[in-house]
Amino acid sequence: MLAEGLGTGALLAIVVGSGIMGERLAQGNAAIALLANAGATGAGLFALITLLGPISGAHFNPLVSALMWRRGELSLRELLAYVCVQIAGALLGVWLAHAMFDMPLLQVSAKARTGAGQWLSEIVASAGLLSVILLGLRARAQALPALVGSYIFAAYWFTASTSFANPAVTMARALTDTFAGIRPMHAAGFIIAQCAGLILVLAASAGLRGTNDPIQSSTSVSGNVP
Amino acid sequence: MLAEGLGTGALLAIVVGSGIMGERLAQGNAAIALLANAGATGAGLFALITLLGPISGAHFNPLVSALMWRRGELSLRELLAYVCVQIAGALLGVWLAHAMFDMPLLQVSAKARTGAGQWLSEIVASAGLLSVILLGLRARAQALPALVGSYIFAAYWFTASTSFANPAVTMARALTDTFAGIRPMHAAGFIIAQCAGLILVLAASAGLRGTNDPIQSSTSVSGNVP
Amino acid sequence: MLAEGLGTGALLAIVVGSGIMGERLAQGNAAIALLANAGATGAGLFALITLLGPISGAHFNPLVSALMWRRGELSLRELLAYVCVQIAGALLGVWLAHAMFDMPLLQVSAKARTGAGQWLSEIVASAGLLSVILLGLRARAQALPALVGSYIFAAYWFTASTSFANPAVTMARALTDTFAGIRPMHAAGFIIAQCAGLILVLAASAGLRGTNDPIQSSTSVSGNVP
Amino acid sequence: MLAEGLGTGALLAIVVGSGIMGERLAQGNAAIALLANAGATGAGLFALITLLGPISGAHFNPLVSALMWRRGELSLRELLAYVCVQIAGALLGVWLAHAMFDMPLLQVSAKARTGAGQWLSEIVASAGLLSVILLGLRARAQALPALVGSYIFAAYWFTASTSFANPAVTMARALTDTFAGIRPMHAAGFIIAQCAGLILVLAASAGLRGTNDPIQSSTSVSGNVP
Repeated sequence: MLAEGLGTGALLAIVVGSGIMGERLAQGNAAIALLANAGATGAGLFALITLLGPISGAHFNPLVSALMWRRGELSLRELLAYVCVQIAGALLGVWLAHAMFDMPLLQVSAKARTGAGQWLSEIVASAGLLSVILLGLRARAQALPALVGSYIFAAYWFTASTSFANPAVTMARALTDTFAGIRPMHAAGFIIAQCAGLILVLAASAGLRGTNDPIQSSTSVSGNVP
Repeated sequence: MLAEGLGTGALLAIVVGSGIMGERLAQGNAAIALLANAGATGAGLFALITLLGPISGAHFNPLVSALMWRRGELSLRELLAYVCVQIAGALLGVWLAHAMFDMPLLQVSAKARTGAGQWLSEIVASAGLLSVILLGLRARAQALPALVGSYIFAAYWFTASTSFANPAVTMARALTDTFAGIRPMHAAGFIIAQCAGLILVLAASAGLRGTNDPIQSSTSVSGNVP
Repeated sequence: MLAEGLGTGALLAIVVGSGIMGERLAQGNAAIALLANAGATGAGLFALITLLGPISGAHFNPLVSALMWRRGELSLRELLAYVCVQIAGALLGVWLAHAMFDMPLLQVSAKARTGAGQWLSEIVASAGLLSVILLGLRARAQALPALVGSYIFAAYWFTASTSFANPAVTMARALTDTFAGIRPMHAAGFIIAQCAGLILVLAASAGLRGTNDPIQSSTSVSGNVP
Repeated sequence: MLAEGLGTGALLAIVVGSGIMGERLAQGNAAIALLANAGATGAGLFALITLLGPISGAHFNPLVSALMWRRGELSLRELLAYVCVQIAGALLGVWLAHAMFDMPLLQVSAKARTGAGQWLSEIVASAGLLSVILLGLRARAQALPALVGSYIFAAYWFTASTSFANPAVTMARALTDTFAGIRPMHAAGFIIAQCAGLILVLAASAGLRGTNDPIQSSTSVSGNVP
């Protein structure tokens, strides 16, 4: 539980911190800032999932925890605890990033991220992330940290929303008025789209049931992610 | 089959989407846009081939399917089905990218890509990709996803055509008027060059037959790519 | 011992040399220089730790050696010898970088790096690095070179101080008036913050003792890092 | 032998081709061009060494072949044949790059690369490369492709000469008047420095003999690189 909170906090510190650094140094060239932001996030995820996977499963994401609950690996009570810890950790991570860069801790983002394209992007990004996890557990569980890191690096670039794909991350990023921020009013749309991505993956898995069902597979995450 | 279509679609969404994002953010500096485009494509290929290799072989490319047909791993009927699914998936991937970036779905590229250097580049890029796959199956099949991802990252840069190396991808990229596009009139030349690359590899393999023949090797892709 | 000195020297030559090259070529865009600097450092650390881990443990860092002393893997005498060799190697590495770039060997940095945010950054960066090592030894010791390289790449970006996280490196970087430098007056603050990060990790480990204690774990670094 | 020639040719096509592409797109920002150049070279080396290591040892470099001759893995006759094939392959690779970019095949570089710092850089780069290979064979031969690729990526940045570290490559790069070129008059100095790096590594190995001698180790490259 501590691992899940610390890991989500570290993830947010990486996402927000590298965004601030990129924006400060890139002289207005957002492509260079996003390259640094995506590279740092991908490398950080690889490290965090490798290190904390054997302890908590390294979800860092309510969508992933919900998927694991559906697979029967978490009880409903554990799911709720995971989600609370993820949100709390995410907030602390954002404040840590602000403190490191000598900024006011409490901020509210003014960055607009809304519209059909953004929402579609979040559905795609979330469904993609969950598919990577489900297929990765089947194909090569040991490679999961590298797979998630690579996927997120790519998804920062191929989606219009830079792939939040995580409700806890979205809430926390509403509270930073920097490169990685999102206006709180717009966060709701992102979170609804992310849940739609989760439902899509659950429905697709149910549809494929019978032939080969990745959802109810007996492969346990905690036992395999290492 | 579904995996092959979904995978090719995801590949195109990555290629076209990251091209659009790169172009929008890079303020006219095409080198930064291509760096992001190549990085996202390489990382995405690593993930897609790792995940879908055990299911469909993860060809995503009519040239690769044709090679596997010549190796006796696909029947002619399966080859045709693979190619149809790849083309359909590629188109859907391009439209998905357009939708995510709030652009009109149907576009026709105006980007000129033609001339002897471009065609030679496509011959080299295609022959290189197929050689990587043939030699990779022999040398270290488990590393194939990383090998293809690394090769394509490099090939985006060392060929003058940014290495399409894939007829299904070429057709689909004719229908996007963005960073990754190619004028439909010019797509034909690319596809002919790509087929020439395939023939070159088949001829070289036949020439080497006797000593050690990677083409008729009994190593099965579907069994080894994982 | 020789390996530890050579490795720390090589690390400094990489950090300082790639900083000089980045600054010379990047035309004032510090984000591009830092991208190159972080990429070269991460790749170099992956290689150095893989190669020298089986010989000396590949600490290259007094904080890591102190941690290993606390784990009982180094005697106090060995710890002192390691630290001396690391500092000497670091200085030689900086001078080698200066020589390669035709600069005066002896320089004193004028680059200001001070303030609460910078110090907090160094506490976070150091505690993070030591946590990566402790958890990495438990989770997947073979991946330690890739984990440390990835972590440092990310930490260059998500901390405000670009993550020195190493007293020997900090001392040596005070003697280069280039991209990677730090004013000697300000180095002391960095080193104090780094030691605070070490104490934090030792305290947290002691707090967790009983359930599972990574500090006193019998896993030997020299035996596992390879 | 064919593998050695093809591999060296492919390496040069990657180095020179990605240099041309980088320079064309980067609008005069040499740091971005070098980032692409170094990334493509590192990724390409990873792929080439993985694929061709089991066939020819994947030297692509007279210094490496000379080292293997000293280790008793090549006869003098084989050494000479390797070197000839490497030089021929390197030239063909440069011409292939020129052809792909619609440039005249025969060019002579006008790019000045000379002076003490450049020569010291080449000594360091060459000694470093050979040390990576010798230590990598001992520590983790399977990781050699990733180690060499990572090292070269870093060495492009931390040496003032961008790390040629290869006499065959140096000769070939004298014949391209592009980003990667070197004035023929200056190539001689580079090659002398590279040989000095080889002698340094051989002398250091001889000095360490008795305790543990990586040079005469019975580990065979061809058997371990895969």
